[in-house]
Amino acid sequence: MKFRKRKIFALLSAAAVLAGSFAGLQAGQTDILSGVTEIKNESVVHAAQTVSKTPKYIFLFIGDGMSYPQVQITNSYLAAIADTNNNGILEADNYLSFTNFPVAGSAQTYDSTSFCPDSASTATSISTGHKTYSGVINMDETKTISYETIAEKLKSQKGYKIGVITSVNLNHATPAAFYAHQSSRKNYYEIGQEMIASGFDYFAGGGLLSPSGSGKNLTSLYDIAAQSGYNVVTKQADAAALNKSAGKTIIIDEHLADEDAMAYQMDAAQGEWVLSDYVAKGIDMLDNDKGFFMMVEGGKIDWACHANDAAATINDTLALNDAVNEALKFYNSHPDDTLILVTGDHETGGLTIGFSGTNYDTFLTNLANQKISFAKFDSDYVSGYRQNRTSFDAAMNDVYNLFGLTTDASKAADSTLVLTDYELEKLKAAYNRTLSAGKSEQKNMSQKDYELYGTYEPFTVTITHVLNNKSGVSFTSYSHTGLPVGVFAKGVNAEAFEGYYDNTEIYSRLASMTGVK
Amino acid sequence: MKFRKRKIFALLSAAAVLAGSFAGLQAGQTDILSGVTEIKNESVVHAAQTVSKTPKYIFLFIGDGMSYPQVQITNSYLAAIADTNNNGILEADNYLSFTNFPVAGSAQTYDSTSFCPDSASTATSISTGHKTYSGVINMDETKTISYETIAEKLKSQKGYKIGVITSVNLNHATPAAFYAHQSSRKNYYEIGQEMIASGFDYFAGGGLLSPSGSGKNLTSLYDIAAQSGYNVVTKQADAAALNKSAGKTIIIDEHLADEDAMAYQMDAAQGEWVLSDYVAKGIDMLDNDKGFFMMVEGGKIDWACHANDAAATINDTLALNDAVNEALKFYNSHPDDTLILVTGDHETGGLTIGFSGTNYDTFLTNLANQKISFAKFDSDYVSGYRQNRTSFDAAMNDVYNLFGLTTDASKAADSTLVLTDYELEKLKAAYNRTLSAGKSEQKNMSQKDYELYGTYEPFTVTITHVLNNKSGVSFTSYSHTGLPVGVFAKGVNAEAFEGYYDNTEIYSRLASMTGVK
Repeated sequence: MKFRKRKIFALLSAAAVLAGSFAGLQAGQTDILSGVTEIKNESVVHAAQTVSKTPKYIFLFIGDGMSYPQVQITNSYLAAIADTNNNGILEADNYLSFTNFPVAGSAQTYDSTSFCPDSASTATSISTGHKTYSGVINMDETKTISYETIAEKLKSQKGYKIGVITSVNLNHATPAAFYAHQSSRKNYYEIGQEMIASGFDYFAGGGLLSPSGSGKNLTSLYDIAAQSGYNVVTKQADAAALNKSAGKTIIIDEHLADEDAMAYQMDAAQGEWVLSDYVAKGIDMLDNDKGFFMMVEGGKIDWACHANDAAATINDTLALNDAVNEALKFYNSHPDDTLILVTGDHETGGLTIGFSGTNYDTFLTNLANQKISFAKFDSDYVSGYRQNRTSFDAAMNDVYNLFGLTTDASKAADSTLVLTDYELEKLKAAYNRTLSAGKSEQKNMSQKDYELYGTYEPFTVTITHVLNNKSGVSFTSYSHTGLPVGVFAKGVNAEAFEGYYDNTEIYSRLASMTGVK
Repeated sequence: MKFRKRKIFALLSAAAVLAGSFAGLQAGQTDILSGVTEIKNESVVHAAQTVSKTPKYIFLFIGDGMSYPQVQITNSYLAAIADTNNNGILEADNYLSFTNFPVAGSAQTYDSTSFCPDSASTATSISTGHKTYSGVINMDETKTISYETIAEKLKSQKGYKIGVITSVNLNHATPAAFYAHQSSRKNYYEIGQEMIASGFDYFAGGGLLSPSGSGKNLTSLYDIAAQSGYNVVTKQADAAALNKSAGKTIIIDEHLADEDAMAYQMDAAQGEWVLSDYVAKGIDMLDNDKGFFMMVEGGKIDWACHANDAAATINDTLALNDAVNEALKFYNSHPDDTLILVTGDHETGGLTIGFSGTNYDTFLTNLANQKISFAKFDSDYVSGYRQNRTSFDAAMNDVYNLFGLTTDASKAADSTLVLTDYELEKLKAAYNRTLSAGKSEQKNMSQKDYELYGTYEPFTVTITHVLNNKSGVSFTSYSHTGLPVGVFAKGVNAEAFEGYYDNTEIYSRLASMTGVK
């Protein structure tokens, strides 16, 4: 949903611009550059060189937009709410299962032209070992050469069964990067066709985008899938009834939410399947003597961070961890044959655990007052406000119930949740803007307004900004940022993922240890 | 300089507040908490269990305030300016020596009550393996029990020579945490007394704070040091002439800058000693058959980040890397006996490689236009503006020369450096505030103004904010934040530093492999 076009460099003009900057730099920065020349010769020891065993069962979890801030804020939030002695002394620990893995390397995420790359190019790097442009799925920078993916190679060369699971759309960029080859991530119909042609054994998650093409006039991808021998299952009860003998399967979540993705974890009703359920079912379906490879994307971490919704970010990171716990159960019965990797593709939002207004303090427990994702608040409340010309005070009553923010100190769950005049003015200005025009109608925004609201519903994004800040948390962007991501590894050859390396190494080391060419 | 008091929790009131929040949370978050209970049983494999050899020469580099953002922005900046083909295609690599180390683990930095801890508590954790309160040096939360440090133990139990080097003051929190035991990091005179009493072999860096006590009426610490048998050297030429036979030595940098610290790397004149020179000299002085332990702090990374000065941050991270390169030279001639660790104590500033206003683009080469640190601009320019009532236009001429920002598109080194009306208005407002009152006189700031300026010179911090943003970079705080830090390791037992763990493990694993009790 929240992918926005980035300006791909026009190479010629970029070269001209950089030539100018670079000439100026060389004069002033000689020492730095000569220093670099020297230190680049420092040898890199790749632990992969010592690999000795092929993992038969490989789990690759990708938290979209999940870098160190998203991981650590979840650990810290859990520590904050778990102060069981109520003494203010932190008993923090690695609450997330995967932060307890024995190996936690780092991967740099830059792509061919950007330090703030997108999910298409970064997943291409993870899946094929090649850097490319943002927006491109498994093709080179000329968009003429296709790259075969680790999943395709494991299937064709080793006979592994393959599973692809995501909380967003099954033809969204990250899952696509394991089976498709397209010059643009927006070729949803063509990506869907490649998904079906892949012959992979198990797909599960959000619904397909543009299932009948952008003109809505092509044969439904679901029909093509069925004709190609896939079980296409759209009811949870039917999914629950599936067993290994069912053969190739596509499960579309029954309770689709924004943009036909699965619901944010915090919006899922009791009993609705979440990411971990699809992983558990996938293990049942894929388990076989030749082995399997399963890619699981926590895609809504990214969407939450784009919208600067910290509470939804934490809850979807927990959803990914719950899914990892399913893999750990499998690992525990197959410890000598299983490798589990948990990584991200890039950071989203410039999330920081700290905010200028709260100095050295954080109030992470305040985030527990948020009961609804930004997206569900948009659809279930804000559209009604605009239609009914709801008063600001009435809307603020919902804001109290759903986010805990109030001007009334006697009602506030915590004194740090009481709105200041400054914050109230920000909310009022945003509300007026929301009433006057929906987010899709915001045109010609001023530089200031764009920084305040991005392309989001002004009222909603201001609510999450204020709640985040009052929790001691902040974001700097509505896009991706340039942090490296953690690469958490457990099981066979986990040690191959030590160090600080390019994301292309994730492919290279997996290919090396499985012997695919 | 930039340490600001954080509100230490009053435990009783905090307990009351948390009890309220917690009761509310338990109702809504049952699933999360029960999930946590399950995953906490996941076993942690400590690679330290397999340690086999004692490193004879140990280097511990601490970039103060240096977490993943500070490391990666430096790698990315170097990649941006090193686009040698001028084709816009990134040829990024691990430019920093230490990001090429074979092991790169992660350490969580929270202290006894804060997720945004200070350098005293975090250095205590690294140095002694204990968590404590922010502001406390090597004592427990009751401030009655002192902890012996890894440096003290290696000296007394193993006969290692000890060196402590920092670009800030030798009695500042981080260096102090290797030799002092104080209830407050602000007990500078007492810390200085403990520094002398330590008998450590080599100290080098910035000048002592309060050398004659807070009342300026006590015997100079420098005199006490000399009486205790230390060479106290304050001239660079004398430092250069020192050799191993000189015995216990304290070198105070000859060219002290802000707060009697060493200059920011970008302000250091040609030929002035920088951090790497003090490390090279330290290796000469400490090298001996029984071994040595050297702690080297890049302290001004933190100060630059507090002030939201990205260019100074990058340059001081490079200064630390240059210092690491001296250790690598030593390693290359003693590969079987040397361990090099490079880590941070916490993140400072909430630095992000990305900014809402530039979406998926960054323009990191713009930062090369900054020729002076915020601190030197304050002292060499801003104080004059206030005294002379300099016009805004005249000041902006300096801003063009020193930071590259201008409203004149024909003068700008890059089109993205041309100031918009919105940015110019922010600079004007900040300039007026700077002229009307210095940073130390800013009282009763509004919430909005504090978020804009913190306790910094409004004009200067607005200049760096604007330049950062125009480079695609942002900060969210003037304080520390809660990110984990990288732990880069090379040499004997480097693999012991794999994984994602508490910063206390740095001590524990060092103690385990050296056999100190």
